[in-house]
Amino acid sequence: MGAVIGPRDLLQRKADALEKLSAGKDIWVATASGTGEPCLVPLSFAWIDGRIILVTPGRNRTARNIAATGSAHLALGPPRDVVSLEGTAVIRDLDTIAEEDADRYCAQAGWDPRPVASMVWIVFSPLRIRAWREVDELEERTVMQDGRWLV
Amino acid sequence: MGAVIGPRDLLQRKADALEKLSAGKDIWVATASGTGEPCLVPLSFAWIDGRIILVTPGRNRTARNIAATGSAHLALGPPRDVVSLEGTAVIRDLDTIAEEDADRYCAQAGWDPRPVASMVWIVFSPLRIRAWREVDELEERTVMQDGRWLV
Repeated sequence: MGAVIGPRDLLQRKADALEKLSAGKDIWVATASGTGEPCLVPLSFAWIDGRIILVTPGRNRTARNIAATGSAHLALGPPRDVVSLEGTAVIRDLDTIAEEDADRYCAQAGWDPRPVASMVWIVFSPLRIRAWREVDELEERTVMQDGRWLV
Repeated sequence: MGAVIGPRDLLQRKADALEKLSAGKDIWVATASGTGEPCLVPLSFAWIDGRIILVTPGRNRTARNIAATGSAHLALGPPRDVVSLEGTAVIRDLDTIAEEDADRYCAQAGWDPRPVASMVWIVFSPLRIRAWREVDELEERTVMQDGRWLV
């Protein structure tokens, strides 16, 4: 990236967010128990056709929280170049994931969880995506609302 | 840091965690509403005498969630060199924060929120701290449990 003067416009933020989503390997995943206990972990991910695929052991808090609440808040960093994604999440067994999507997960995330029977697959659908770097970008940071890109 | 062969021992992980906590400026903060809606944001922080100080607008979800649940899960990154901190959090008004602690917050976080009346101060006390880099460090990653350092 070249030098940027002032805050990015929405179109640039969307383009930068999509680049991070397409090229990243790890994402921060916040979930909560039904009683309000938060859980934050980094997980490998893939961005496939507008959704995020995650894989984690079914016994982990992240999987149990998503099973209980259907909700997650994800973020790509670093903390001064954030893409924040809020949305719905569902737990899926591997046999309900299209083989092509599983292949794409392995390629982007950099590992193949398919031989590990204790894993569950998580499909996250963003409803709100925000992108900002520093204080001067806190305004006008929403690039997706109610599941629709604003630009 | 020099080249490291194999997983770090607990003492090294604690030392590395303390270095990140003392030198960092931004930390990921996950909270939840009382009904299980997660919220994840990066905030500037300071590590002061074993606790973490955060400052955020009182109207924000992070502040409201902490007021409702008294709980937060924090993480320092990047995602492949994590320090994870789970613990209790309380909302405090500036006039209950020692002036020396407020000064230390400003010095580490790199900004002075004291003139901004809408801000609340958050004091986070870790109960469990874990430190890991990659898969080979997933075992033996707990360096603090029940508020006590294990090494």
